[in-house]
Amino acid sequence: MLSSNQIEPVVRMALAEDAPWGDITSESLIPEGATATARLVARESGVFSGGEVFRAAMRLTDARIRVDGMLGEGGAFETGAVLAEVTGSARAVLQAERIGLNFVQRMSGIATLTARYVAETSGTAARIVDTRKTTPGLRAFERHAVRCGGGFNHRFSLSDAVMAKDNHLAVLTAGGRDLTEALREVRSRLGHTVHLEVEVDRLDQVEAVLSAGVDTIMLDNFSVEQLREGVALIDGRAIIEASGSVTLDTVAAIARTGVDIISVGALTHSVRSLDLGLDIAVDRP
Amino acid sequence: MLSSNQIEPVVRMALAEDAPWGDITSESLIPEGATATARLVARESGVFSGGEVFRAAMRLTDARIRVDGMLGEGGAFETGAVLAEVTGSARAVLQAERIGLNFVQRMSGIATLTARYVAETSGTAARIVDTRKTTPGLRAFERHAVRCGGGFNHRFSLSDAVMAKDNHLAVLTAGGRDLTEALREVRSRLGHTVHLEVEVDRLDQVEAVLSAGVDTIMLDNFSVEQLREGVALIDGRAIIEASGSVTLDTVAAIARTGVDIISVGALTHSVRSLDLGLDIAVDRP
Amino acid sequence: MLSSNQIEPVVRMALAEDAPWGDITSESLIPEGATATARLVARESGVFSGGEVFRAAMRLTDARIRVDGMLGEGGAFETGAVLAEVTGSARAVLQAERIGLNFVQRMSGIATLTARYVAETSGTAARIVDTRKTTPGLRAFERHAVRCGGGFNHRFSLSDAVMAKDNHLAVLTAGGRDLTEALREVRSRLGHTVHLEVEVDRLDQVEAVLSAGVDTIMLDNFSVEQLREGVALIDGRAIIEASGSVTLDTVAAIARTGVDIISVGALTHSVRSLDLGLDIAVDRP
Amino acid sequence: MLSSNQIEPVVRMALAEDAPWGDITSESLIPEGATATARLVARESGVFSGGEVFRAAMRLTDARIRVDGMLGEGGAFETGAVLAEVTGSARAVLQAERIGLNFVQRMSGIATLTARYVAETSGTAARIVDTRKTTPGLRAFERHAVRCGGGFNHRFSLSDAVMAKDNHLAVLTAGGRDLTEALREVRSRLGHTVHLEVEVDRLDQVEAVLSAGVDTIMLDNFSVEQLREGVALIDGRAIIEASGSVTLDTVAAIARTGVDIISVGALTHSVRSLDLGLDIAVDRP
Amino acid sequence: MLSSNQIEPVVRMALAEDAPWGDITSESLIPEGATATARLVARESGVFSGGEVFRAAMRLTDARIRVDGMLGEGGAFETGAVLAEVTGSARAVLQAERIGLNFVQRMSGIATLTARYVAETSGTAARIVDTRKTTPGLRAFERHAVRCGGGFNHRFSLSDAVMAKDNHLAVLTAGGRDLTEALREVRSRLGHTVHLEVEVDRLDQVEAVLSAGVDTIMLDNFSVEQLREGVALIDGRAIIEASGSVTLDTVAAIARTGVDIISVGALTHSVRSLDLGLDIAVDRP
Amino acid sequence: MLSSNQIEPVVRMALAEDAPWGDITSESLIPEGATATARLVARESGVFSGGEVFRAAMRLTDARIRVDGMLGEGGAFETGAVLAEVTGSARAVLQAERIGLNFVQRMSGIATLTARYVAETSGTAARIVDTRKTTPGLRAFERHAVRCGGGFNHRFSLSDAVMAKDNHLAVLTAGGRDLTEALREVRSRLGHTVHLEVEVDRLDQVEAVLSAGVDTIMLDNFSVEQLREGVALIDGRAIIEASGSVTLDTVAAIARTGVDIISVGALTHSVRSLDLGLDIAVDRP
Repeated sequence: MLSSNQIEPVVRMALAEDAPWGDITSESLIPEGATATARLVARESGVFSGGEVFRAAMRLTDARIRVDGMLGEGGAFETGAVLAEVTGSARAVLQAERIGLNFVQRMSGIATLTARYVAETSGTAARIVDTRKTTPGLRAFERHAVRCGGGFNHRFSLSDAVMAKDNHLAVLTAGGRDLTEALREVRSRLGHTVHLEVEVDRLDQVEAVLSAGVDTIMLDNFSVEQLREGVALIDGRAIIEASGSVTLDTVAAIARTGVDIISVGALTHSVRSLDLGLDIAVDRP
Repeated sequence: MLSSNQIEPVVRMALAEDAPWGDITSESLIPEGATATARLVARESGVFSGGEVFRAAMRLTDARIRVDGMLGEGGAFETGAVLAEVTGSARAVLQAERIGLNFVQRMSGIATLTARYVAETSGTAARIVDTRKTTPGLRAFERHAVRCGGGFNHRFSLSDAVMAKDNHLAVLTAGGRDLTEALREVRSRLGHTVHLEVEVDRLDQVEAVLSAGVDTIMLDNFSVEQLREGVALIDGRAIIEASGSVTLDTVAAIARTGVDIISVGALTHSVRSLDLGLDIAVDRP
Repeated sequence: MLSSNQIEPVVRMALAEDAPWGDITSESLIPEGATATARLVARESGVFSGGEVFRAAMRLTDARIRVDGMLGEGGAFETGAVLAEVTGSARAVLQAERIGLNFVQRMSGIATLTARYVAETSGTAARIVDTRKTTPGLRAFERHAVRCGGGFNHRFSLSDAVMAKDNHLAVLTAGGRDLTEALREVRSRLGHTVHLEVEVDRLDQVEAVLSAGVDTIMLDNFSVEQLREGVALIDGRAIIEASGSVTLDTVAAIARTGVDIISVGALTHSVRSLDLGLDIAVDRP
Repeated sequence: MLSSNQIEPVVRMALAEDAPWGDITSESLIPEGATATARLVARESGVFSGGEVFRAAMRLTDARIRVDGMLGEGGAFETGAVLAEVTGSARAVLQAERIGLNFVQRMSGIATLTARYVAETSGTAARIVDTRKTTPGLRAFERHAVRCGGGFNHRFSLSDAVMAKDNHLAVLTAGGRDLTEALREVRSRLGHTVHLEVEVDRLDQVEAVLSAGVDTIMLDNFSVEQLREGVALIDGRAIIEASGSVTLDTVAAIARTGVDIISVGALTHSVRSLDLGLDIAVDRP
Repeated sequence: MLSSNQIEPVVRMALAEDAPWGDITSESLIPEGATATARLVARESGVFSGGEVFRAAMRLTDARIRVDGMLGEGGAFETGAVLAEVTGSARAVLQAERIGLNFVQRMSGIATLTARYVAETSGTAARIVDTRKTTPGLRAFERHAVRCGGGFNHRFSLSDAVMAKDNHLAVLTAGGRDLTEALREVRSRLGHTVHLEVEVDRLDQVEAVLSAGVDTIMLDNFSVEQLREGVALIDGRAIIEASGSVTLDTVAAIARTGVDIISVGALTHSVRSLDLGLDIAVDRP
Repeated sequence: MLSSNQIEPVVRMALAEDAPWGDITSESLIPEGATATARLVARESGVFSGGEVFRAAMRLTDARIRVDGMLGEGGAFETGAVLAEVTGSARAVLQAERIGLNFVQRMSGIATLTARYVAETSGTAARIVDTRKTTPGLRAFERHAVRCGGGFNHRFSLSDAVMAKDNHLAVLTAGGRDLTEALREVRSRLGHTVHLEVEVDRLDQVEAVLSAGVDTIMLDNFSVEQLREGVALIDGRAIIEASGSVTLDTVAAIARTGVDIISVGALTHSVRSLDLGLDIAVDRP
């Protein structure tokens, strides 16, 4: 869940970015006392995310705006659905409209895309997870949207889990040092709550990594056939993550190999905003 | 141009978001004195944007990292091109890698997409411009990327130009008030440097708007045929902006109608990160 | 209009500056439960501005303070007028008094001075506008005060309009380059909503500038006679701004030359606080 | 002295306020490589203050700008004097010009006005001191400027000295309580480093206040004659501050009464910017 | 008193530090609608401080949490006492618990320790005061806690009183300059509200310091016997502060020497959190 | 490692807190050009932590101060050892002294205390770990200090590991639900990198918890005898953490029971600053 402590500073910053010294259009065109009623309408089907952020965009522009009848986070909807109703000062609703939409369209876009990946893997045990390829400043929001779509989150940041990649392994084994032993020593330096994940590029690295007692092995850029071999080889001795250029076309086959985790950078690095609009009716005072 | 005053706070925030209490992977796996040389490599062709932001991600992680041989902003490149070379502490380069890439991939994605729209309109006088559908917190960065791709910027925020849309016009003419007169009165209340743009949905609104002396008329969701009629009708009496669901497939035909400005929300609301990677070699101390 | 999003951070900062670790006078002299009723009283006549900022100074010190009967922004008042009534905790009212007054006195000072300039130009079409010579951090507040006084705002910042001055023109025409052609090229690089204003020092520069199609010509430091010639020469082909050492003594004559805009740096660079006071009565609990 | 820790955040904020997304004039008119040499010139005589703030405005816009030959803080100068020389990127110097001037003009305006008050009191022991009527956010800068002009600072904020005014005394003596005893009790609750100043409106209050052992007595809105009586009556038993509507016309007579301290709100509440300009010469690359 | 202006930013920062992207324990284990009732219970006796900070930790996590029946600041309590009752969302109460306790345990630890020092000096006129050895970022909170315990505050910061120590005196008297004369000159440069305190290491420095007219003399690291001599020598001509390695074992004897002020760094530099706990009962919805 | 990105904002805040408008003592007593050489000296033995924070306190006060010969983080030292040498402006060194010491004394206090706990457990496999009972705002600093002392870090915040305590378990099993099944369902909702730790108060809870497949079991407030039983019962099926009122007197016996982890709240909730001082010599210019 996003708390107000997380939502408010980001929304305030976005509102300030969009109206550093007021909304001169509303101020010059809309009478001060005019009220608006508006409906957040889906112009395409999808999965909802970002409702509380949308509400904050309205409320931080004018604390008296009411947002009612909001669809729950993670709720699916069809084209034409009304996702929320807004009432309040016409000037304020028009001023907040774009910022509210910018957030909810992006977050619902992520949730909807995630849900499509999740649907593709239904009937398997594989989880769809996100990556650190998020928009700077919006990671908590985008991670929340992934969960709304039925996905799971990978480590949040560099600070909360170890992920050893090819470069790290190359350094560890420089000078012919034994990989298993090197990884064991690394593990001994980590806090007991720290998850240790190691990426391998080839199956012949797997045994050395497993012997060190890692938590997750990431099989990077493996073909479906290689993944299947990897799953058989690892045989439950570690969590298995498949990674690398996963698409909606390939994810079902990858999931059926028996991997536990499929990480998909595209969930957040290439967001398509969902088409949501605000239908506004203004009443003059 | 993005100044360091604009770049630094955003990059600092992104670095803090990604490593609130250090990079435990680098700290546990990479010796303190190890150095890295890395190359920012294009895994697909495109237009470059965000080089100074990438540099800042490196320099604010460790002031001693050097970034050399950077391609200029707006420069085109082919797959395999080396866009910059990085040398410095291996720990720091590995820590900064993802944040540096997150920025430069998104900004180059925007620049590249913009350049495709611009190419489609070549041979016409039409300009490709962005909208306020930008990522919260990154508007200045994304607007810069649009310029790198050969596009132009629309108004930056609600504070620096008036844009009267259907809701505004409905309010203005409530009670049967004359639109021309109402717009003239609005204009008289605006500062002399404020650009006045009015959106129309139908051609029969054009004369009333033009008579009020607006700067730009936006023809919203017009067909190509209607745009052509609009251009003939307006006949140079105002700048003409075409808007609404513009795609790479439709933009050339729109440009050929003779409109001056084509605004494309997709430039920033549905970013696909360009595939750029960092090839890193680590030297143990 | 100033939104709470603009007012609150500035007022919070001012309150923190004035009481970093409490108001030791109130805490040691006033019983905790004592209440105060106070009236914001005009000790000289003027035009009101900053009422919502004054209210925020009270409310952000103690959310339970009530501010009632406030004169509307831009309202004129005579000596002795009661501009607002304040009731609440005596400690809090006494603590907030100076900061509330500092804002409202300065803003009303600006509004009142602006109104005097506007009054001097009554009967002409000339507008009084402000400049970028504002107090660092308070530009939005001071610009609002100018509007309260009946003035208009010039460009808000370096980012939202182009203003080419003598130095810029010297660079543009270096090497004998034609000014008209150079300005046309500049215009072609600007966004379509960007206002282009050019400053000239001599009448013989006017034709070259006009030929480039600029929006506003600023006649800098022209005598009244030269302004009159300039107005005749330009003849409606651009908005005309008069600038340079405008005073209350000279502004009427300048306005009568027919210029459209008169910019007055003194509106904000040399503020005299209006004499407003808070008459406070404290009731012991 | 203002430290860089105090100067930098304020100047950064001012620069961001003035160029939220770049200086479009410099970017469209000045070639990227052009350099400028500029001289900060006095267009009237005065006392200098704010040099380091001016330097910061330049350096925080472009770290490579050099500012040399700066007059020392508090230095007196005549019309035409060159107060500093600036060299660096023409775009950057032109962008920073207004913000640098806004600070140094205001601060030198305060220093110059202070110096005039100080000059009026020469030959007496009276000190000129400032008040809390400062510009929100700029108190440390304005207090520094007062010192540059030869004045002294009063308490900085509500937190660092007690100042009991009429309202406070009315509360203290409500119900017929003895003022001396009440003030003694207040003193016993204050930290030993806290200065206790009490304002009196009439001479018959002086003995009761003195008996409580206060540090300073403020004689508020006393005539010159009454001040003279007050000085005789107090006779060195406390520091004596004269306050209330002090002007350049009245300050000399007030100083000659023998008071120790004369507080002048006008030093900071009604600033007239000093006329300083930047003479800039641009070299094309 | 701590104002909400002082409390809120610090508590928000602490909450963000402790839950940068949510409380995954509460979210995964506690149903969304579950409510909790909790009692803040003393597991040892002491003096209460930080109640409003505790309340803010709860309210800023969820504005609907109620905190009732709170003991007043500075109130003494026995083991087992209920200091406050909390009701609200179980998730929110569990999330805020540790941060609320971290503040109130530390502040009550300081208040309790202060009260022990104060009790040791009862029957004397000596005051217990704190120092600048506070936790970075928490000075206002810790100073408040000292007052809750019956202590007094020394100068808050380097900006609000002068304290000349051995290093300063060595510089002042370099080259054989007379200390009295040097201190007099210093005094003449200080604002009239600035308290001047001078530290001496030996009794033979006292006369020279007193002759300069200082406000407080600090006798640094004097034995009880030396303090008694100092008190006799100074004989009321300045406030006398004893400082240096004061402990609960030595403070009574020091107080009986007749010094006015005893400063104790340990009040804040070596805090032992008081053992307070939150007894929570959760009701499933 | 603490990065400069983590250190600088905290140190800047502390410096601003301690000198909001300058160091009036240094400014009035120390000539502007005077230089100081200072040595950071240990007045008791211990383990060093916070050197880079100390350096930042100096450098952010005056960038020209040099800090040389610093002992490495985690280095042990004896009474009298010189831990760093400082040279630079006397005013700046004196101004920064207390803030630099406040940080390094607290952090070295934590490192030293941690090292004592670690020493008590030598010869066992048990690790000493910290808790969330840290000083608000300083968690990253205090966690670093624990590592300097040879300890390990527990989860950093509520966001990066699950820790189910008695309240959580009571909710989970409300209505007679099976604990194992409930915990399994919880696990299925957690990200794959999230560590799951469950606290038990009695041995008869252990099997149900282990059956659910948790990562760590915390035995809360167990006697040494009970811990020994618990270790035998769990028999390597989960990491075992002992928690609750661990002291220097009891930690060795606890470690010998065979537990893996011993968490000690006192490492950070009751810090005693280590006695480090700055011996300063000032040279007049």
